[in-house]
Amino acid sequence: MAASPSEYELTLQIIQSLKEGKKRGFQEIMDELQPYDMAQQYQHLPAKHRNKFLLYLNIAQLKEMMKELNKEDQLEVLQKLGIEKSTKVLDLMENDDLTTLLSDLEPEQIEELLSEMKQEESDMVQHMMNYPPETAGRLMNNRFVWISKHYTVREAVDKLKDFAELAEYLNYLYVIDEEKKLVGVVSYKDLLLGEMQDKIEDIMFTRVVKVDVHTDQEEVAKMISRYDFISIPVIEGDDKLMGVITVDDIIDVVIQEANEDIEKLSASGKAIDFNTKPFVAAYRRLPWLILLLLIGLVSGSIIDGFSDTLQSAVALAFFMPMIAGMTGNTGTQSLAVVVRGLVSQDLDIKQVMKLIFRELWVGIIIGLSCAFLISIIAFIWQGSFTLGVVVGSSLLITLIIGTLAGTIIPLVLYKFNIDPAVASGPLITTINDIFSLLVYFGIASIFISKLS
Amino acid sequence: MAASPSEYELTLQIIQSLKEGKKRGFQEIMDELQPYDMAQQYQHLPAKHRNKFLLYLNIAQLKEMMKELNKEDQLEVLQKLGIEKSTKVLDLMENDDLTTLLSDLEPEQIEELLSEMKQEESDMVQHMMNYPPETAGRLMNNRFVWISKHYTVREAVDKLKDFAELAEYLNYLYVIDEEKKLVGVVSYKDLLLGEMQDKIEDIMFTRVVKVDVHTDQEEVAKMISRYDFISIPVIEGDDKLMGVITVDDIIDVVIQEANEDIEKLSASGKAIDFNTKPFVAAYRRLPWLILLLLIGLVSGSIIDGFSDTLQSAVALAFFMPMIAGMTGNTGTQSLAVVVRGLVSQDLDIKQVMKLIFRELWVGIIIGLSCAFLISIIAFIWQGSFTLGVVVGSSLLITLIIGTLAGTIIPLVLYKFNIDPAVASGPLITTINDIFSLLVYFGIASIFISKLS
Repeated sequence: MAASPSEYELTLQIIQSLKEGKKRGFQEIMDELQPYDMAQQYQHLPAKHRNKFLLYLNIAQLKEMMKELNKEDQLEVLQKLGIEKSTKVLDLMENDDLTTLLSDLEPEQIEELLSEMKQEESDMVQHMMNYPPETAGRLMNNRFVWISKHYTVREAVDKLKDFAELAEYLNYLYVIDEEKKLVGVVSYKDLLLGEMQDKIEDIMFTRVVKVDVHTDQEEVAKMISRYDFISIPVIEGDDKLMGVITVDDIIDVVIQEANEDIEKLSASGKAIDFNTKPFVAAYRRLPWLILLLLIGLVSGSIIDGFSDTLQSAVALAFFMPMIAGMTGNTGTQSLAVVVRGLVSQDLDIKQVMKLIFRELWVGIIIGLSCAFLISIIAFIWQGSFTLGVVVGSSLLITLIIGTLAGTIIPLVLYKFNIDPAVASGPLITTINDIFSLLVYFGIASIFISKLS
Repeated sequence: MAASPSEYELTLQIIQSLKEGKKRGFQEIMDELQPYDMAQQYQHLPAKHRNKFLLYLNIAQLKEMMKELNKEDQLEVLQKLGIEKSTKVLDLMENDDLTTLLSDLEPEQIEELLSEMKQEESDMVQHMMNYPPETAGRLMNNRFVWISKHYTVREAVDKLKDFAELAEYLNYLYVIDEEKKLVGVVSYKDLLLGEMQDKIEDIMFTRVVKVDVHTDQEEVAKMISRYDFISIPVIEGDDKLMGVITVDDIIDVVIQEANEDIEKLSASGKAIDFNTKPFVAAYRRLPWLILLLLIGLVSGSIIDGFSDTLQSAVALAFFMPMIAGMTGNTGTQSLAVVVRGLVSQDLDIKQVMKLIFRELWVGIIIGLSCAFLISIIAFIWQGSFTLGVVVGSSLLITLIIGTLAGTIIPLVLYKFNIDPAVASGPLITTINDIFSLLVYFGIASIFISKLS
């Protein structure tokens, strides 16, 4: 908030200092900026000033700014910095940021960058990139403080001081044994409140909540938000401490996962944002649309099958879009409730049955209300009591079917470990179209004698 | 992860210790549990053991567990604890958790609870409840450490130690002047690395990123995730420090906001989760459905208007659901892209125009592809070239309209500070139904002579 008003004049000051070559003045401005603000400034800067801007930043600042830039700018910066300076920056960057940066690059580019880096750093990054995407192994970083269980509080505090610069957050110290196995955790508070000569193994908290390198990032997010942790340790095999995942990365995960749910629910295709090019966006959206188009034709052939019924009572066509639409809408509603419910809750069979019966009831209540309303409208509008009955009863049945379809389909997918959100709103809608037309014309043909 | 396997046997151990009245053994188990796990255990516990469970917990543990319980259980616990013990717990609870707990209660219940609490605590809570919901004022807590700018590093460290127990996170100390105005921030790292006799005002970071008590929680979440903060200070009026918002609360906000977007996008009505009762859920979903039902009838009357056209060429009806459906689907896709895009990005007019043109292009590309496909299908299926042209050209036009409607409607709402997500998928779908039918039958009537 407070940062934003002065943003524009800041840009002016920066350009000023760059033009006049006042490195000192430039540094004074930077000292007061958050990494995100630096990145904003860099991105707003006219191209001609960018090189000098980078030249004036020190390595630490460059590293901080890097992780706030989007991928394109990150690569631009690396390339402008030249191989020597850029590897210094990469060495400093957190491994998780580095992994994300590299993950989309060509193998040879990755090779080139890593080859220049400190052996230990590049090993860690290469190791992390072997874990599947969206797992804990990809999110973890090694900027944390570990201590041996044999330490005293004093030794722990000293080590904490030495590593303060490097560690991302100081809230917890993770305790390991001789084989680097995670055996406990000590909060910084415990150190403050403990006696200097206390042994760590006596004051440490041994029931450590941890995740495995292969744990899905959505699961990790669930745990961090449940336990209100700042960071959570990541282990591999039998409790070997590999790294930590920090809450700032988890926030990004939560946003990303929510976006993915919405992308799928709306069948809008993966990763389309404001900057996606038209052809790319269209290309990503088309597969779904073509599938839906073909399914949509099924409804067509159903109507084709009932064309005599329709011919003899064209009024039936008036209510077709409404019935189909309503069935789709109620299905979408149920779907959304299920998909989002699964984000914060794990389901056992008991809850599943409870949920299905709940939705059945919802379908019945909604169905009765809407059916009652529409049959009166149909009667008044078309003056045919029979039509009212046909439309009303059809709507009642289709709404119940629609609600259940919207509930059961995602639950079945979930059961088979398929992301329930792939049962997108449009898909449910299109499937429900078919149900509704079958029911509608089925009922209509029964009463056809009275309708025509 | 590691915590979960033993959960069941834990429950058994707990019941054991409760039955045998082994308070010591019970405490040993609790000492190792996270608040969330305690809450889980309490909820899984057979009703008959719950009273003793609460009796055996000390105030601190009760307070920790409380904030992890859902509202119903929280009230059950308070009531079981009795007014004296429960007020002790409330006094300890973080104000933000307290505010959330109270916000849904009846005024007299709130009155009763607050009246028993420490004056200072209850004042703070009452003050917070005056801020509008979903603002920073409702989220902030007062469990933070503030220091005067005149302190030395040593004085700051001492104060930090005294308050370690109370403060939620120790990462930052907020610096205030004589009038309690926020003038700077010092990270705990700075203290570790500074000299003991350094003056705080010399080492503090003066360009503090802060939010106002009235800032929308979504905005707060945006800032915390941008700056990777653990907490952000909340000010009122001219920089008076009121409290801090911590990252753990922000994760809940991010999840909540995402759910709200999906609820609206799917018109599934506010706050329906797995535990909502059928009638409540139905009641919350009905308003939208009835509105959509009425709009749906408009499509009906359009068809009514074109009934002669339809009568003379029933084949037109076959493609009706597909065309209407496709227009709705593409609209939903565009809508989702816009709504989620706005979560992470602020838009200026330049980007808006860029976005609209992008979607226009997407519409054209998608339209041409689908139109080409469908006209061939229509021709083969119905053997009428004219029908192919009619269906194809209609689909082309409606898909372009649908895409633009799905883009422009939410943007207009956003411009007028209405949450763009209220333009729900179902609404866009239903509106697009109407467009598509007008276009479809409009074009059809031009060619009617050739169709029938």
